Formats: sequence, C-alpha cells, structure tokens
Amino acid sequence: MKEQGKAKRGIPVKSDFNSWYPAIVEIADLVDKRYPIKGMDVWKPYGWKTMSLIDSITRSEMERTDHLEYRFPLLVPEDLLEKENRLVAKLKAARDAGVDPSELRIEEEDAGFKKEVYWVKHGGENELDIAMFLRPTSETPMYNMFSLWIRSHADLPLKTYQIVNTFRYETKQTRSFIRVREIHFFEAHTVHKDEENATLQIQEDANIVQNILDKLCLPNIISKRPLWDTFPGAWYTTAADVIMPNGRTLQVATYHHYRDQWAKSFDLTYEDENGNIQFCHQTTFGMSERLLGAIVGIHGDDSGLILPPSVSPIQVLIMPIATHITDDVMIYSNKIKKELDENGLRTKIDDRNIRPGNKHYDWEIKGVPIRLEIGPKDISKEQCIISIRTGGKETIPLNNLIPSIFSTLESINEVLKSRANELFDKMILPLPKSDIIDGNIVFSEPINEGIVYEFPFDGNDADAELLERKTGITLLGECNRPYKNPLPCVITGKLTTKKQHLARMY
Amino acid sequence: MKEQGKAKRGIPVKSDFNSWYPAIVEIADLVDKRYPIKGMDVWKPYGWKTMSLIDSITRSEMERTDHLEYRFPLLVPEDLLEKENRLVAKLKAARDAGVDPSELRIEEEDAGFKKEVYWVKHGGENELDIAMFLRPTSETPMYNMFSLWIRSHADLPLKTYQIVNTFRYETKQTRSFIRVREIHFFEAHTVHKDEENATLQIQEDANIVQNILDKLCLPNIISKRPLWDTFPGAWYTTAADVIMPNGRTLQVATYHHYRDQWAKSFDLTYEDENGNIQFCHQTTFGMSERLLGAIVGIHGDDSGLILPPSVSPIQVLIMPIATHITDDVMIYSNKIKKELDENGLRTKIDDRNIRPGNKHYDWEIKGVPIRLEIGPKDISKEQCIISIRTGGKETIPLNNLIPSIFSTLESINEVLKSRANELFDKMILPLPKSDIIDGNIVFSEPINEGIVYEFPFDGNDADAELLERKTGITLLGECNRPYKNPLPCVITGKLTTKKQHLARMY
Repeated sequence: MKEQGKAKRGIPVKSDFNSWYPAIVEIADLVDKRYPIKGMDVWKPYGWKTMSLIDSITRSEMERTDHLEYRFPLLVPEDLLEKENRLVAKLKAARDAGVDPSELRIEEEDAGFKKEVYWVKHGGENELDIAMFLRPTSETPMYNMFSLWIRSHADLPLKTYQIVNTFRYETKQTRSFIRVREIHFFEAHTVHKDEENATLQIQEDANIVQNILDKLCLPNIISKRPLWDTFPGAWYTTAADVIMPNGRTLQVATYHHYRDQWAKSFDLTYEDENGNIQFCHQTTFGMSERLLGAIVGIHGDDSGLILPPSVSPIQVLIMPIATHITDDVMIYSNKIKKELDENGLRTKIDDRNIRPGNKHYDWEIKGVPIRLEIGPKDISKEQCIISIRTGGKETIPLNNLIPSIFSTLESINEVLKSRANELFDKMILPLPKSDIIDGNIVFSEPINEGIVYEFPFDGNDADAELLERKTGITLLGECNRPYKNPLPCVITGKLTTKKQHLARMY
Repeated sequence: MKEQGKAKRGIPVKSDFNSWYPAIVEIADLVDKRYPIKGMDVWKPYGWKTMSLIDSITRSEMERTDHLEYRFPLLVPEDLLEKENRLVAKLKAARDAGVDPSELRIEEEDAGFKKEVYWVKHGGENELDIAMFLRPTSETPMYNMFSLWIRSHADLPLKTYQIVNTFRYETKQTRSFIRVREIHFFEAHTVHKDEENATLQIQEDANIVQNILDKLCLPNIISKRPLWDTFPGAWYTTAADVIMPNGRTLQVATYHHYRDQWAKSFDLTYEDENGNIQFCHQTTFGMSERLLGAIVGIHGDDSGLILPPSVSPIQVLIMPIATHITDDVMIYSNKIKKELDENGLRTKIDDRNIRPGNKHYDWEIKGVPIRLEIGPKDISKEQCIISIRTGGKETIPLNNLIPSIFSTLESINEVLKSRANELFDKMILPLPKSDIIDGNIVFSEPINEGIVYEFPFDGNDADAELLERKTGITLLGECNRPYKNPLPCVITGKLTTKKQHLARMY
C-alpha cells in the first residue's frame, strides 16, 4: 500500500484524512471491520462503551424533557406500509401541483424506500404470508400503535423515544459509524394536540441537540433543509451538520415537524376539550452512531483519538512506574484510583509488565484524556505526573489530586472546543464571486469540494437547484444564524440576511 | 369471554394463572401485545425500564467478573454456518457410535436450527448472493471473529458478553417474555486455554446466576441437563429453572461447557507458553427477558404485580393528599422526593387530580413496593404513611424517613423471598411410588402436570427416557443439590444421593 503519509507505527497522518479515519477506528479498537458483511462492523468493548456513554447523555436529555423510553419490534409487516405509501403519494401529488422543485428527487425517494430495506420473506423453511422488513426507522410500527393509545387530549403530548438497531440496504461505499448497514440509532417520536405544540417540541429538540453536541465539543451548522431534502411526510426538516477535516459535512441530527400529515394517514386523532375530534400533530428527531464518527473525525490527531472527557470510557489512566522498587507504588496507585472512583471518575490502572513508553503510546491512540504516572520518586514527594492528551505534562501534589484532575478535564474540554471551532471556522469560506451570464452562474474561481461555502441567498427553489447543479455540491438549507447585516443574494442580487451553505455531504 | 375467576376491575384472580399472566402483563403496562406480529410485543416504558434494571444487575455482575461488553451484527451470512454444521454432524456421529440415547432427538435439533430462524434473502429489490439469517444466538458470528483475535496464551481468557435482540421463528403459541419471536437476550461467550479453566468459568457462571436470581428473589433448581437436552456442541449444559405458580418450570438461565468441540470446528487455537498450538476451550452463558416473566409470574398477586425493590422502576411512589388545603403538601412531597432521590432511591410523585383510592389501585397493579402518603394532618405531626405492597400500612416519622424506607424495602425483599420459597417448596413433591412390572414403570397414583416431582435417580439414559415417556413430562437433569442420605433409585433400586426432577417445562 502507499507508504507516504504514514506517521507513528502505521497510523496514517491525519492530514491524509481519508486514510486516517478508517485506519484509526480499528487501531483504537473501536470496531473490527472484518465481519463478513460490509457495513456491519463488530463493536469492540472500547467503541461500544464510548457509544453507550453518548447514549447516556441522550437518555439524560430525554429524561430531563419528559420523554419515555419504549422498545418497538424490529420487524415491520409489509401491509402496514399502505398507510405510509398513501401519504407519500398524496404529498407527491401536492408538490406536483404546487411549485415544481424536484419531482425527480421525490420519485427517487419513493422508490428508494423499498430499495433500501432488508426483507424477511422466510421463516424457517416456510415462505411467510406477509413479507416483513427490518426497520430503517420506526414511523410505521409506532404510529400504528399510537393510534390505539391516543383517545383524548389527556393522552397528549405523547413523547416517546427508543435507542435501537436499524437497517439500511446500503449500496454506496460503507464507512464505520458514518454509512453502515446496521445502524445504532436514536429516534424520538412525539404527538401533540396542535401545530403550535409540535413547533414547541421542535424548539425543544433544537435545544437538546445543542446540549448534546456541546458535551461532545462539536460545533455545527443548523439548517432548514431544502424541500427536496425534507424527510418524506415532513412539513419541514431541520438538520445539524458537523464539518469533518476533509471539508465534507456530516449530518448528525435531524428533527422533523410533521404537522398533521402523518396523522391523517394513520387516523391519529383525539377528542379535544370540547368533544371534537382533531388530528394530532407530530414530530420526530433522530441521531445515530454518526455522533461517534464526528468525535473520531473532528477531535483526533496524528497520535490517534482524542475523546471528550464526557464520553471517554477511561478518563484517567493510572500508570504505576517501577513497581519492582517498592510495593508502595501499587498501594498508591490503588489509593489514587479509589479516590478518583469515589468522585465519580472513570479510571483504570495499567499494570501490564511493559515499558511505560508503550503504555503511553497505547492510551494515546485510544484518546484517554489524562494519563497519570506515579513512581517511587513521586511518592517521596507526595505528587504524581499527568500527561494531558491535548498536550502538556504537569506535576500535581497528591493532596490536591481531585480538584486538579477535574480542572484538567475541564480544560481538555475547552481545548477540544476551541480546536474544533478553529477547524470549523477554517473550513467555511464565502462562495467565490459570481456573475449571472445568460441565466447561468459563473464563478470567479473553481469550486473546491474540501470547503463549505457560505453565502447570502434569497432565491427560489429553481435558483437553489441551479446553484447545486453548477457547483456539483449540495445545499444544506437555510441556516438558523442569519447575517447580521443584509448582503446581496448570490443569485437575485436582492439584499438579504438569509444564509445558506453549499458543501459535499457524507 | 369467561366471567368466572375475575377479581378486581377485570384482573383475573391469580389462582387462574393461565388467564392472570397474559392479562397482567398488559394491565400493568409492561407490554402491548397488539403489534401485528404475534410474539413481538411492544415494550411500554414501565416494562422496558424494569427490564433495563434487570440488565443493569447483569452488567454489574459482568463487570465484577471482568467480562467485556461487545456488540456483534444481527445478521449472519449462511455460509458461516458450514463450520457449525460440520460440528453438529461430527457430534452426531460420535453420539451414534457411543451410547445410543436419542438419535432421533439430535436429528430434530439439526433440522431445527434452519427451521427456527428468520431468513433475509432480499435487499431492496435484489436477491442477495448469500442468504443471511437473524441471529438466534451468536456462536457462529462470534467464533468467526474470535479466531481472528486469539493468537497466543496472552489473549486468554477472552470473556465477552452482549445484550441484544435475537430472533426465533417460533411456531408454538407465544407468551409475553416466556416464548417470543424477538427475544431480549443476554449471552456471554468465553474462551480459555484448557478444560480446567473453562470449568472454573462454569463455576463463576453458576455463582453469577445465583447472585442475580437472589436479587430478583427467585428460588430455582439447578440441573445438569440430560444429554438430549444439551445444547448442540456442548459437553454439558447446566440450567436454572424457576417454578411458576401453575407448576410449570421456566428455564431462566443456561451455561454450557463446550470443551474444545467448537474450537475444533472454528480453528480456534492459540500458541501456549512453550510455543505449541493448542485448541481453546469455551463456555457460553445465556439469559433473557424470561427473568422478567419469572418475576411477574412468581411474585404477583390478585392485585397485580409485585416488583422486587432491586428492579422496580419506582421504589417509592409519593402521593400528596388534599393539596387544595395547603401548599405545604406539595412542598413536603417535593422535599421528601429530593431526600429519597439523594439517597439513590427511584421515586415519583403522583400529583394527578384523581382520588387517592384510584392512585393506590394504579400503583398497586404496577407492583410499586412502597406508596407514601402525605397530607396536611401528617405534616402537622411530622410524619407520613406508607402502604407496603406485600401488605400493611405504617406511620413513619419524617425525621427517620430514610432509615425507615430502606428497612421497609429490605423487609419487602425478605417477604418476597420467603413467599417465593414457600411456593417453590409447595410445588415440589416426591414422585409417586412406582413398581417396575415387565420392564415397565407403573405409578401408584396419576402424574399431575401441575407438580414438579423430585426423586432419587441413578439410572442410565434409557431409564431416563422411560421415565419421560411414562410420565409425559420432562426430566430436568441431575440436580446440584443431592439428597443428604442415599435413597433407592426409582428405576434401578440402587441406593443413590443423586436427585432429579420431572416437570412440565415452558
């Protein structure tokens, strides 16, 4: 294979991101990709634990906002789809009748669904009466049950979520955490009495997403997706995208306002305070193992992963040094571990009989925030030495251990945020100047797929499509952070504060 | 439907267990069975939370014993099965050549595997090159990876587990938690350097099972299964059975010693300290949502569930009384909740505007261990009143709240254990006296399928088979608690301390 761009013991340098990413997920022992189905990786304990810690953050946000955890079956009988198909057909008709943006794309979506699922048509040696598919998401199974559960306004709001395996028959190239066929998936589905309450839910989702991404130190762009990238059946879709070091955006969360569109297909109604039957309004909100993909891609460096303290399976790795000289070293190591554990930290003692250099190397790759060394000399001075994964070494007195560790973890968190913000800002540039010549857009310099372009835009769907076609990259949609001062739209020239981005999406 | 045997508001009486059990799982809101695929229930939040708490106990036992949590893909390519089939064929040949017990049964097992799985043969509109099935358990996918991971003695022991959904294409009648088609499943798989170390693992498993069943207040019978009930590929299988109130036994845990039988099929070898290549020895250990089925069936009563405090989603339900009289009631309720929460208890305030009687009724059905009432009168006396789900009411002074609640939970735990033990002892009777007449066994009284029969047995497999045929019920295998004093074997008449059970198994 190509030798250039290899740094420490076989880890590609991070500037060669497209080699670095797939290599590091295995070298850091997050997953094993050698399972004989492409896109279905084996989660190793270190990867699974990290993902479980991300899930814990999600669960605590769900608990804070009064969502309840359900678990729906994986298999969906094909005949339940009729309602969903009716909905999609109706929406298609509506869109066809209105503005025309992208009939072709909607058709792709429709057909896409059946193309993208795994089918179970056989049980044992029998052909099943009704074929079933492995859920890609759970609208259909859930809403069939919701219509049994919801009778009156007293049953609303219904705020549900689950964290489950979902499946897509992916034909594109797979990538660990980013594009896989068995997806570790979070989905929240809520039901409300009217559009306004559903809108409030969307605001709550926006807030939850920011809380989670903040804990993971991930700056992001929030956009209202263009109509053709709206989830089928949604009134509008909002998405959070992070920017990977190669300039590609990765959609890590979406939340959808359904209005009463799905409710009308699933007969999801309730009796209001006045005894009238009303259609429910709904929202959904999804995230996945892509959150881990973003952490790996954005925070890592040439030496391996760097895990934010909030989700690092080991926050402090303890390395006893020169244990052969005195038993005190292990006694102190255990004492330190106990003290850290009692303060709610996740720790581990590495007492393997190998050189300290190798231990440093191993835990550096795995992105452990703090490595703590203690040897005979340190004991005599009542101190220990910490190596900080984001850089630097410090000597800390044992009588100040806990406050020092907490403040170091906090500063690692801040360094990760500021580095991620720096990368984020660096990747976003204004769209090159352009002229409209004969209804065609001509840029002053070539479009670079490794850049996220930002620009004022106030055009219509046709203008948007023109931009995508001419740049060959994708419109993220209207950003939630408009320009402070109006600027001329790149297509219409009209002054606007509306901001959009073009990027190559994963 | 039949009206007889109905007690409080539609809950069947527990003495009519076969009506009570399916009713209570829905009335207590553990699952909804109306999902359109039989045997695939929707887990409601209360049921899922209870199951998650059972999983937490399992996870902490796994952590204590240095098992690591993995997550393997759900889908298994058919061609991986070749190795497994080779193993089963080899074992079959071996058994054929040795004692003859039950060739027929082994054949059933072989064929059974393909009969019992769901097959995925289509992705989108394509027929897949290689068919895949939904894991019933994970030997095949795991051991294929293990053979990549294990190189030397330094890689051993490998102690893995996962908690996942598994699938069986079940053709028998399904029952919530007991016989389902999507199974919430725990499986541990370990690899060792020799038989002795694998045997030590089996002992550790036995210990883990007892720790877990003790926390769930579930007395059980431990048996080494007869050869024909041994898991295919296992040297021997040990199982834990609980006894449900209808006298049927429910297998809630199994652990299998594989010796090197699977390793030889999967080329699972390691280089020992002397540089020699050796086959690994393996064990597996499985449990499932049946643990919850056992809790429901064994502890519940005519008024609903009774959940052991260890897994009750709500340990103390707080009922503010007469909140309209003074705001103090809610202030005190919140204060009590805060104090209980800070002591690590799971609590909830029921401030619905309905009669206290209805609240009692609702939380009684759900088996909440303690309901705590506080009203204006109680406040003036600095006390509260607790209703204990296993019976009784107590007034406790608020200045002694925490110790009182902890000791009450502890005593609920003890009551559940002693009641379960009482039921357990009551269900086990000695096998009716029998005579062997012309090589045939004749009992002095008819066999009752609602009883677990215990008896001394020292016969061979043919004798065992005769017993099963004549009683029409199933042999659990050699019990790990032998008789203290030798008794004559029911078939051979030889004195033995070996004990066996016959029972109708779920």
